[in-house]
Amino acid sequence: MLDLADAGGVAAACGAWRRDGNSIALVPTMGNLHAGHLALVDRARVLAERVVVSLYVNPTQFGANEDLASYPRTPVEDLAALRAAGVDLVYRPAEAEIYPRGPARAFGVRVPSAYADTLCGTFRPGHFDGVASVVLRLLLQVRPDVAVFGEKDYQQLLVIRRLVADLRLAVDIEGVPVIREPDGLAMSSRNRYLTAAQRRQAPALYRALVAAADALAAGQVPDEVSRRGVETIAAAGLRPQYFEVRGADDLVPAPAAGQALRVLVAAHAGTTRLIDNIAVPPHPRALANGVDVTEN
Amino acid sequence: MLDLADAGGVAAACGAWRRDGNSIALVPTMGNLHAGHLALVDRARVLAERVVVSLYVNPTQFGANEDLASYPRTPVEDLAALRAAGVDLVYRPAEAEIYPRGPARAFGVRVPSAYADTLCGTFRPGHFDGVASVVLRLLLQVRPDVAVFGEKDYQQLLVIRRLVADLRLAVDIEGVPVIREPDGLAMSSRNRYLTAAQRRQAPALYRALVAAADALAAGQVPDEVSRRGVETIAAAGLRPQYFEVRGADDLVPAPAAGQALRVLVAAHAGTTRLIDNIAVPPHPRALANGVDVTEN
Repeated sequence: MLDLADAGGVAAACGAWRRDGNSIALVPTMGNLHAGHLALVDRARVLAERVVVSLYVNPTQFGANEDLASYPRTPVEDLAALRAAGVDLVYRPAEAEIYPRGPARAFGVRVPSAYADTLCGTFRPGHFDGVASVVLRLLLQVRPDVAVFGEKDYQQLLVIRRLVADLRLAVDIEGVPVIREPDGLAMSSRNRYLTAAQRRQAPALYRALVAAADALAAGQVPDEVSRRGVETIAAAGLRPQYFEVRGADDLVPAPAAGQALRVLVAAHAGTTRLIDNIAVPPHPRALANGVDVTEN
Repeated sequence: MLDLADAGGVAAACGAWRRDGNSIALVPTMGNLHAGHLALVDRARVLAERVVVSLYVNPTQFGANEDLASYPRTPVEDLAALRAAGVDLVYRPAEAEIYPRGPARAFGVRVPSAYADTLCGTFRPGHFDGVASVVLRLLLQVRPDVAVFGEKDYQQLLVIRRLVADLRLAVDIEGVPVIREPDGLAMSSRNRYLTAAQRRQAPALYRALVAAADALAAGQVPDEVSRRGVETIAAAGLRPQYFEVRGADDLVPAPAAGQALRVLVAAHAGTTRLIDNIAVPPHPRALANGVDVTEN
C-alpha cells in the first residue's frame, strides 16, 4: 500500500494505473475510520481496480466554533485498517498540497443556495462550501473514475453529485447506505464524544426516523411527521435542530407527489451534534394525483 | 475549422488530438474579436499544435447594472476572422454547457479577497468570481496544455494564474501584452461605445500610464505618481475610478523594494468604463535597500 503526502506523487501513481488500463475509485475521508468508512472502501473495491483513500481533516469545512482542533485523529489505526482492507494508496496530504497558500487565501467553491442554505447548511454556514472546495481538489488531483461517499452525510452527497454534474467532471458519485450500531445509531467519528448517558439517548434519532418513514408510507402528511419527529427527539433528551421531510433527489421542502422522499434529522446530545437520515420510497397513494389507487 | 456548441463534442475533438500527441492551446474570449484577440490567437498557434478559441459572453461576470444585454455580439465576423487565423476549433457553448442549471443555480468559484476585493473588484463586486467560474469550466472541458489571456485585463490574468496554481491544474497560463490603437488606446470591445469626443479623450489613459512608468523609473514615490495620474486623467475629461501602483506579481499596494511594478487605471468616458495598465521594470535604485547603486 502506497502512503503518500504529495499531490505530485499521487498524480504519478494514478497516472501509471490509468495507463495500465486500471480504473480508480477514490474514498475521501477525514480519518478516524470506523465500520462506516470501511463499507465505503469495500464498495470502492467492487467498483474499481485501484482504491485510493484520502485522510484529511479539512479546515475549511469547520466553523469557527466547531471541533477542528479536537476532531479525532488516529492515523496509526487508520493505516492498519486500510492496509487490511486492501487499499492501494492512502493519500494523507500536507496542507500545502490542498491549499498552497493556506486555507484563508484559497480559492473556494460556492455551493448554490438551494443546496447550501438549508438543513445542516443553516446551522453550519460555509460548511458545504468547504466540503466542495476540498472534494473538488481531491477529484482533480486523483482523477478517479468513481468517488464513494456515505449516505450518512446525505446533504453532502447531494452537494457533491451536483458539483460534479455542474462542472461536468468525468467521475461517478456512488452513495453507500448508512452503517449502524446494533441499536440503530449511525456510525460516526463524533459518537466517541458522547457520555454513557448520551450514548443511551442517541438511538432515539434512528427510531424517530423509522417511525417517520412508516408514517409517511401510511399516508401521513410531511408537516405532521416532522412535528412529531421533533417532539420524539426532544422527549428522548436530545436537542433537535431540524427533523425534515424532503425530496430525496433535490432536498426541496415540498416535493412533488410520487417523488422519493428522505427524512433528515440533526440534534445535539450535550455538545455533540449528531445527524442521520432515512429513505422513504415513493408513496403509492400519491402516484395518481392523490387518488388512492392501491386500495379498493 | 470545427464550430461546436456542446462540451461533449469539444471533449471528443480535444481527446482525439491529445491521443495523436498534439498539444492544445485555449483562448477564452467573449467574442467581438479585434486585433487584441487575434494577437492571443497568434501566440496560441506558436505555443501549441491545436488552437481552440471559445466565444461566450459569460453572464456571471457582469454586474446587475452592467452591459450584459448590450455587449457586442458579432459571431459572423468572429468566425471569419478565426478561420482566417487558422484556428482548429471554435467553441461557442450553449448556456447549458457551461451552467447546466442556469447561472443562478451554478456552483461558483470564490476568488480570495486579496485578488478580488481590490482595483476593478472594488467597483465590480463578484466580477472575478464570475470570471474564475467560467474559466475553470472551460479549462476542465478543453483540458488545454496552455491557455492564453491578454495583459489588458491584468487583474484577471493574475486571478487566473492564482486559480490554476491553487487548484494545481496542469495548464500553463500565458499573458500577451496589450495591443493598442496608433494613439495608444488599448484595444477593447467596449471602445465602440465611445462617442467621437470620448474617443479623442480616451488615449489620455495610456499617456498617463507612460508618464507614471517614467516617473517611477526616475524614483518618484508611488503615492505621488498615483495622485498625479488621477489628476491627469480627470483633466482630460475622464472620470477616474483608480490609478494605482501595485506589485506586478501579486497586486499588493506597497510592494517590496526591487519588485517589478504595474500601474493600473480604470476610468469612465461617459458611461463607458475603460481599463489599462503598464509594466514598470524593477527600479535599480531600490535594489540595494534604498541606496542608489546606479549613479556615481
